[in-house]
Amino acid sequence: MTMDMTFLGTGSAYPSPHRGASALVLRTEGECWLFDCGEGTQTQLMRSSLRAGRITKVFISHLHGDHLFGLPGLLCTVSLNTNPDPEQNLNCVDIYGPRGLRNFLRVTLGLTGSQLLFPYAVHELEPTPEQSPEEGQLSLEVCEVSDFCPPHPQERPGRKITLDVSSDCYLLFEDKKFVAKAFRLFHRIPSFGFCIQEHDRPGRLKTELLKELGLKPGPLYGRLKNGESVTLESGRVVLPTEVLEETIPGRKVCVLGDCSSVVGDTPLSLCHRADILVHEATLGDEHRERAVDHGHSTPEMAAAVARACCARKLVLYHFSQRYKPSSLRKEGDDDDVCELKRQAEEALQDSGVEVTLAEDFLTLPIPLRKSR
Amino acid sequence: MTMDMTFLGTGSAYPSPHRGASALVLRTEGECWLFDCGEGTQTQLMRSSLRAGRITKVFISHLHGDHLFGLPGLLCTVSLNTNPDPEQNLNCVDIYGPRGLRNFLRVTLGLTGSQLLFPYAVHELEPTPEQSPEEGQLSLEVCEVSDFCPPHPQERPGRKITLDVSSDCYLLFEDKKFVAKAFRLFHRIPSFGFCIQEHDRPGRLKTELLKELGLKPGPLYGRLKNGESVTLESGRVVLPTEVLEETIPGRKVCVLGDCSSVVGDTPLSLCHRADILVHEATLGDEHRERAVDHGHSTPEMAAAVARACCARKLVLYHFSQRYKPSSLRKEGDDDDVCELKRQAEEALQDSGVEVTLAEDFLTLPIPLRKSR
Repeated sequence: MTMDMTFLGTGSAYPSPHRGASALVLRTEGECWLFDCGEGTQTQLMRSSLRAGRITKVFISHLHGDHLFGLPGLLCTVSLNTNPDPEQNLNCVDIYGPRGLRNFLRVTLGLTGSQLLFPYAVHELEPTPEQSPEEGQLSLEVCEVSDFCPPHPQERPGRKITLDVSSDCYLLFEDKKFVAKAFRLFHRIPSFGFCIQEHDRPGRLKTELLKELGLKPGPLYGRLKNGESVTLESGRVVLPTEVLEETIPGRKVCVLGDCSSVVGDTPLSLCHRADILVHEATLGDEHRERAVDHGHSTPEMAAAVARACCARKLVLYHFSQRYKPSSLRKEGDDDDVCELKRQAEEALQDSGVEVTLAEDFLTLPIPLRKSR
Repeated sequence: MTMDMTFLGTGSAYPSPHRGASALVLRTEGECWLFDCGEGTQTQLMRSSLRAGRITKVFISHLHGDHLFGLPGLLCTVSLNTNPDPEQNLNCVDIYGPRGLRNFLRVTLGLTGSQLLFPYAVHELEPTPEQSPEEGQLSLEVCEVSDFCPPHPQERPGRKITLDVSSDCYLLFEDKKFVAKAFRLFHRIPSFGFCIQEHDRPGRLKTELLKELGLKPGPLYGRLKNGESVTLESGRVVLPTEVLEETIPGRKVCVLGDCSSVVGDTPLSLCHRADILVHEATLGDEHRERAVDHGHSTPEMAAAVARACCARKLVLYHFSQRYKPSSLRKEGDDDDVCELKRQAEEALQDSGVEVTLAEDFLTLPIPLRKSR
């Protein structure tokens, strides 16, 4: 199964003509999962090779506008480009994000009379007090009050997801291919990271060996591949481990929202050996104090997380708009975004972690793993 | 006083890479007034020669997302670029728009914990049932429910503006330079048009004549210019009309939101002899039925309004995204936006009304009038 990630917006605070506001898409065969949706994401999607209509899941890391203000418009535009036959639109778009997100959509879609042709559900994560300073929790007042707001006609019941105390994380969903979890970050308002873990898949059948054992292609092959033992007419029991090549390990992709740190150690263990760890680096290390004051990270701080969880690749994004993309930078300009990469690389010397600088429309393939 | 209008978005339904969602700016010396604010308006502003920080008033014609979803983000970004000294930020941004707008901002700014460095006030227009089909009024439910939402710390009290029955319009404000009124349009949800009328200004002083009368430059000149009579030492009374050249007539700019028609005759008399009448033309005349079904107009319909109010210049905008800007159109493409202009021109033959096609970033100067 092919898998890749495309950055639609890599700027912080607001969208600009040279950097979109936060948004990226994880694509697996036929499905697009959107992480954050700053203003202008729908236009960035149109500029990319992705199709907005393929978005089946949305993950919102936190409720700051530069990660969220594009969502109502995106849903409306997807709907405008949707087949108007209701029979064709039964698939629910699942939206995961912090408490308050459901009412944000109710009010923005409701007050604007926005009609949607497809159903959607908002699954809200309950933050904990460790995720933000006290004043960061104020916005929940608004949230509680607007609970009176009636649901959109296309809203389906969503879950309230609380921190699972034993695992110290939030289980978002598990299906045949993936398990998705969220974990806690510290920011000015509660922020989350997401860990998408592909299940390991059984290795290929050793067909030569199966033929030697007298087994012909058919349903028994499927049972073996599914991990069941098979008894031959001779009475010989064939174990799956005998006839399957090595398990193909699943890939792991972790996307962290805005943060100046993770909360506890669980995020590090959840992200252990991630193929891709996407971490913000809003400002250079020389502005560390300012970054932390605003709940943000520098390349060195991102690198420390990547090192602690032994990530394979650290991808930096969410750059202050002062850092222009390299292609637009002129000689003598301050604020070289490549300097952010150098800072992370320096902090990751001898760690084996590769550093990539995200730019709008960068697509990173996520190849199948060959080993753990 | 110089005056001009810049289109930031001329597309309908949603923003695209080739046409922004609805937004235009009327600029007079030092001030920018924004009409509608679709998603991406802040980025379009950055691409233009205008400064977002100069926006002192915002007019929202109706609450559809393609006219509104850019407003919370725009306010946040203006704030980020604002001088943090509170003494410098005492000027309130006045926002005018249909009922529901205040809560839209409370919820979007409140749930996202958006801090603003400047105060704002929302003055809500109460729509009447004639402005939309019955189902178009449903969204008011949401509006009433979210009245529980607490105000943003920077929200200042705004007015509730109801239809003035005697004049059949809404008086928004009157200051030394302008009077601004709103009038009713028919659309799927209640929509408004705005009429900005510059006051007439006294003509220049005939300085030669004043000198002949023995009056030297000084405070008396100011009194005459202000329309007061002055008595000379000789007892001779000088009337302002004697010593002033002809009054400089004020300019009139009218911007209509989405509509398939105006409500009643008042809009036509308010827009009488407008220097610029901005009217939507979502689809070509050959799609008239479809346009009207969706509450929209065609060039012929826009032309009929322009003719009825004897506008000087009709500016068409809010084109379906199927109409690419002429500069991007390739030979053989259907949906030529220039055809929309031709349709309006044909309908306006012999009327003396000039037709202009708006494109993103088009700036139209609005010169002083020479005659009524």
